[in-house]
Amino acid sequence: MKRKVCVVVTARPSYSRIKTALRAIQAHPDLELQLVVGASALLDRYGTAVDFLERDGFHIDARVYSVLEGESPTNMAKTTGLGLLELSTVFHNLQPDMVVTVADRYETLATAVAGAYMNIPVAHIQGGEVTGSIDEKVRHAVTKLSDLHLVSNDLAAERVIKMGEDPQEVFVTGCPSIDIARETAASPDLDFDPIGRYGGVGSEPNLSGGYLVVMQHPVTTEFSEARIQVIETLEAIHASGIPTLWFWPNVDAGSDGTSKGIRAFREQRNSAPLHFFKNMAPSDFLRLLINSKGIVGNSSVGIRECSFLGVPTVNIGSRQSGRQRGPNVIDVDHDRHHIEAAIVQMTRQDRPNSSTLYGDGYAGERIAKIMAGWTLRNEKKLTY
Amino acid sequence: MKRKVCVVVTARPSYSRIKTALRAIQAHPDLELQLVVGASALLDRYGTAVDFLERDGFHIDARVYSVLEGESPTNMAKTTGLGLLELSTVFHNLQPDMVVTVADRYETLATAVAGAYMNIPVAHIQGGEVTGSIDEKVRHAVTKLSDLHLVSNDLAAERVIKMGEDPQEVFVTGCPSIDIARETAASPDLDFDPIGRYGGVGSEPNLSGGYLVVMQHPVTTEFSEARIQVIETLEAIHASGIPTLWFWPNVDAGSDGTSKGIRAFREQRNSAPLHFFKNMAPSDFLRLLINSKGIVGNSSVGIRECSFLGVPTVNIGSRQSGRQRGPNVIDVDHDRHHIEAAIVQMTRQDRPNSSTLYGDGYAGERIAKIMAGWTLRNEKKLTY
Amino acid sequence: MKRKVCVVVTARPSYSRIKTALRAIQAHPDLELQLVVGASALLDRYGTAVDFLERDGFHIDARVYSVLEGESPTNMAKTTGLGLLELSTVFHNLQPDMVVTVADRYETLATAVAGAYMNIPVAHIQGGEVTGSIDEKVRHAVTKLSDLHLVSNDLAAERVIKMGEDPQEVFVTGCPSIDIARETAASPDLDFDPIGRYGGVGSEPNLSGGYLVVMQHPVTTEFSEARIQVIETLEAIHASGIPTLWFWPNVDAGSDGTSKGIRAFREQRNSAPLHFFKNMAPSDFLRLLINSKGIVGNSSVGIRECSFLGVPTVNIGSRQSGRQRGPNVIDVDHDRHHIEAAIVQMTRQDRPNSSTLYGDGYAGERIAKIMAGWTLRNEKKLTY
Amino acid sequence: MKRKVCVVVTARPSYSRIKTALRAIQAHPDLELQLVVGASALLDRYGTAVDFLERDGFHIDARVYSVLEGESPTNMAKTTGLGLLELSTVFHNLQPDMVVTVADRYETLATAVAGAYMNIPVAHIQGGEVTGSIDEKVRHAVTKLSDLHLVSNDLAAERVIKMGEDPQEVFVTGCPSIDIARETAASPDLDFDPIGRYGGVGSEPNLSGGYLVVMQHPVTTEFSEARIQVIETLEAIHASGIPTLWFWPNVDAGSDGTSKGIRAFREQRNSAPLHFFKNMAPSDFLRLLINSKGIVGNSSVGIRECSFLGVPTVNIGSRQSGRQRGPNVIDVDHDRHHIEAAIVQMTRQDRPNSSTLYGDGYAGERIAKIMAGWTLRNEKKLTY
Repeated sequence: MKRKVCVVVTARPSYSRIKTALRAIQAHPDLELQLVVGASALLDRYGTAVDFLERDGFHIDARVYSVLEGESPTNMAKTTGLGLLELSTVFHNLQPDMVVTVADRYETLATAVAGAYMNIPVAHIQGGEVTGSIDEKVRHAVTKLSDLHLVSNDLAAERVIKMGEDPQEVFVTGCPSIDIARETAASPDLDFDPIGRYGGVGSEPNLSGGYLVVMQHPVTTEFSEARIQVIETLEAIHASGIPTLWFWPNVDAGSDGTSKGIRAFREQRNSAPLHFFKNMAPSDFLRLLINSKGIVGNSSVGIRECSFLGVPTVNIGSRQSGRQRGPNVIDVDHDRHHIEAAIVQMTRQDRPNSSTLYGDGYAGERIAKIMAGWTLRNEKKLTY
Repeated sequence: MKRKVCVVVTARPSYSRIKTALRAIQAHPDLELQLVVGASALLDRYGTAVDFLERDGFHIDARVYSVLEGESPTNMAKTTGLGLLELSTVFHNLQPDMVVTVADRYETLATAVAGAYMNIPVAHIQGGEVTGSIDEKVRHAVTKLSDLHLVSNDLAAERVIKMGEDPQEVFVTGCPSIDIARETAASPDLDFDPIGRYGGVGSEPNLSGGYLVVMQHPVTTEFSEARIQVIETLEAIHASGIPTLWFWPNVDAGSDGTSKGIRAFREQRNSAPLHFFKNMAPSDFLRLLINSKGIVGNSSVGIRECSFLGVPTVNIGSRQSGRQRGPNVIDVDHDRHHIEAAIVQMTRQDRPNSSTLYGDGYAGERIAKIMAGWTLRNEKKLTY
Repeated sequence: MKRKVCVVVTARPSYSRIKTALRAIQAHPDLELQLVVGASALLDRYGTAVDFLERDGFHIDARVYSVLEGESPTNMAKTTGLGLLELSTVFHNLQPDMVVTVADRYETLATAVAGAYMNIPVAHIQGGEVTGSIDEKVRHAVTKLSDLHLVSNDLAAERVIKMGEDPQEVFVTGCPSIDIARETAASPDLDFDPIGRYGGVGSEPNLSGGYLVVMQHPVTTEFSEARIQVIETLEAIHASGIPTLWFWPNVDAGSDGTSKGIRAFREQRNSAPLHFFKNMAPSDFLRLLINSKGIVGNSSVGIRECSFLGVPTVNIGSRQSGRQRGPNVIDVDHDRHHIEAAIVQMTRQDRPNSSTLYGDGYAGERIAKIMAGWTLRNEKKLTY
Repeated sequence: MKRKVCVVVTARPSYSRIKTALRAIQAHPDLELQLVVGASALLDRYGTAVDFLERDGFHIDARVYSVLEGESPTNMAKTTGLGLLELSTVFHNLQPDMVVTVADRYETLATAVAGAYMNIPVAHIQGGEVTGSIDEKVRHAVTKLSDLHLVSNDLAAERVIKMGEDPQEVFVTGCPSIDIARETAASPDLDFDPIGRYGGVGSEPNLSGGYLVVMQHPVTTEFSEARIQVIETLEAIHASGIPTLWFWPNVDAGSDGTSKGIRAFREQRNSAPLHFFKNMAPSDFLRLLINSKGIVGNSSVGIRECSFLGVPTVNIGSRQSGRQRGPNVIDVDHDRHHIEAAIVQMTRQDRPNSSTLYGDGYAGERIAKIMAGWTLRNEKKLTY
């Protein structure tokens, strides 16, 4: 009898952080993959991640609609509550041997709570890291609800163990997102036309002389400032004069502020060499990064994948604070002049070296192997 | 402007662990108490705790119905999800400056999640302890979602800090349940007739020659064994021949198993000197304990209040494992002969000394004072 | 491609009213049965109907837990809301061509709303009848949300049409519960020992000299009177001196009042020749009725199945008011003396004739045939 | 003691249909207004109706977030389920003497169900009308759950009575939306600059030579066609060459299709004399209509308010089919040429006469008076 491993994917970025593990679980002779897709991964506004999952050949066992409209802290709580109601039904029907929750987005807590309460062993990918905002609370709460910890690097493992987890249940696998980066870096040429393939809106800048990629998410506990923050970045990009491909933010309280800032800017300066995308297949996106002058914003991609790929990053504000950095990162605050100066610096200096800080590119297979061999448990105690 | 402190009480035992703090918050000139009652604290089957709250003069700001019928691990998850949906509405309406969650029952996680996601500072009473079963995961997950930690003793404080919490946000206050024990111990005479005042069912044993108190809860992760476990205790009590006052278990997956065991026993041996209660005012319950030969079962009362009161305890099974013990506790497993032997030992040996392991009896006032002076925060990071 | 017919069973009595239709749908070459079991049909306290479904060889496609504990009008609304949340996920996954909702219990409205809103044609079994209490509002609201009406008799059809439904979509099939009655009446001997097979509690009366069957449900809009009402019946039964088999009430606001009344009576008069059951296989229950002196209470069984079976009925109070009666029914109010007098009258008079008022015993097959041939539609307008 | 009347407003158009009744309830000496705002009335994307309510001086007693993102039939069901969960808590806390539900939007069913199940008398405004799509099922289901019917005209009253409602509980009051129309028509000059006051996007056409108003909602059961349908209208408007003020659709399954159609058109033809608004204060909107050449689309405003105001209407498609029309309406299907021809006809013919088909402009006061004098009841039966 195969061990049933139920993975819950709730957002576009989570898919990149689990994709190669999904593939390896599916391929493993002793494992059966159960795939649940929910929350913003089902929503068109954020680039329907579920479509990429299906295009990549994964069968979806259940879809869970749970995102309340009107992005606010109250609705983040409600979305998680609704996810918990729905996931418990799904787990009751699928009867998995273990459930897997990915990283630290607010709605992922629902997977961990449902698993823990239903006496199903919970595996957590990417515990032990440190960042800003609500993610920080979510990530460590998920660690305390989880039974198996599959982390990105030694420092993360050390932190999970310090929090009182049994060292025997903590494994350094690297992050699966680096696996995709490794595979993509093997054939790095930009072999497609981004606008031709993905549409989007805005002007259609000439990319042949180099371009920037921007991805800036709202920071939930600074809800009201989201709009101001994105305007600082827009102005800095505009001042740099470099053609830019911009990706819309994901679903979080405050993203309406960010969206409004972008819309207002577009109305005023519709001639700027800026093009906006909702989403892109992960490997296309990475290829875009590899061929860019660098990434600007506050996405974890700039810290994680780009450290492996050696792509320069201008990281803005507090969202990634606490996360370990490779040599590719320049940190700045939400100030248009500081951002512009960092862009200039980034485009002038030498290409940074590749780093294996977040993995060596073989995490997916390691994770599947550990899941197959791990002694299932759903009880634990603090080690001190 | 008074600081609004919103306390969520979700179960009968939680009320004992917060009552003196509620009183002190209400009395504090800089604090305004907001009281939310939910989950099993509203249910008749478990002795409607909300009635005691109102009788004690507290005003209830909101009632939250969330317990799904059909006690099972799946429904524990659903109850928590429903609680999260409802509490987020309640917090949205009450706009508290901080929310308070008590101890480690599964449904208390909803309070912590709603608070954390809504950017409201969360205070946790009784973190840092160690026990068995799902409570263990819940308690530490709540710690990771909380901003202020009000713990029972030094060891608990040390554990919370080891988990990566800022030592400046961790306060040893003692447990408010010990405050009631201290107050009750000041006038220890059994000045009421338990059956006369509280009804209940079963025979009406003569208590003048001494009696036992029993409180045995199902252990959730041993769901199917709940019935067998309670029968072992019933048989041991029956064999001891000592008159016994038995309290029904609280609402948890498995309590139907416990209830059935008790019902079946009653049908067969309805002449045994056993009387069953649903609930009792906390001070009456403590007075009953003080005048008893000891308590049998797996309630935390035997570990906590009874250590202060010097009441002997026969603690059965894994439910309290990991919790620090005073000199009053004899531990046994779920075996009728071992339980009976422990009862005999307990009734023969000298009365144990009082211990301040879980507090000196002045926790409530300390908690209110800390809440009034604490610098509100809702962001934090691991200290390592 | 077979037409997928999704039937939602939410309670013990609903199963009897759909069982032969389930069988006929399953057997029909052009139909595929999808079976969803939810609400009180999953709960042990009311005699887990789902077990009978499985024992009868039906495969359950999804289980939906939705009943909130603490029976009250507020929780009836919440249970329906939760059912609506859950059923919409289930329908989204099962993709039925039509959904079927049975009769008029409060939680059945969730099936009709989910179907109507999701553009799935809704078939309603047993519309057009008239009763008291909330069922009355539910039944007709379900009619207005439904596209296909399968009713018990001509008067019901006439009422559905008067409400503005298209006469072409209204079919008189009879009630499937009568099918079981017809089948059972073909071999009417009481060939089993009720207490031996079904356990239950109470004394074990000698049934050889004749016995009564009682089934009394609380009437939701008279919540507080449920306890008083059941006591009147208990006293009347006791005064009659006839051995009695009593069935516990179903889950509705007020049933705790009924349960309490029964428990209190049992404590005082535990020698009365009364035995209590939770549930019984429908055919065993009918055989019990056929061999009884009659049924007492307010169950629709007394009005419907017993009219076909020619079993005398003492029908108490308002719960069945408005429903058409065969010659077997004596109506009384909630007065112990009136009830006792009616019992005496019922046991003395001749056995009533069989009536086909609620069907001729071939409803299930008719229903399946109509479902297979019906032109699917999910839009309609008032006919006037 | 004042009678507590709890009105639930869930959408922008519902507010217009209840505003003068809210005012009259507030002013009535024997009534106390309790106001609950929920669903899309709280959402920015649809023009936050709640802001208009507050600006008009109403106090909001509770806010209920319930709209799931990702507009689809499944989520319409979920939104209603969530609304039911939340409203039952709100009603439990507010303890109203009656609840009021307005018209026929899908989420309004939650108010009627919660009221009916909680034994609170339900008053329904605007029953007995006939339209297309899911509204038709919702409206009549609400009638069957309601105890008091306050309808727009004699034909509506007749239909409600035919459906089996007691004629004594049915009152012809007219529609409160006509009250605002009457008040506005008393000072009809366009005394504000629409774009100056309300912003919006698009070109800024010169309105002095006359203009059209467009409001076109998606029709839920034709989900996939929403985009095509809106394009037909856009092309017809464009061909007419008349300056146009366009209002975004409300929240329904399919509105994303409509929105996309509009966005795509704007990208291609951004020079067309089209301006887009989200929302407008009702009286400003009516003044805009009075001074326009006519309204185009499928909003009920064209049928109802415009019949009183004598504003010509080109009504497109099935959404208003079944609704009674005054002399101001030209009906066309979703064909750009037919729409364009109807626009030409409308702008050439004489101004239609005012009609009192939907009220004489004094509905609000009538409603409050009836509510104050009505004998509360929550039980009823079919009259046949």
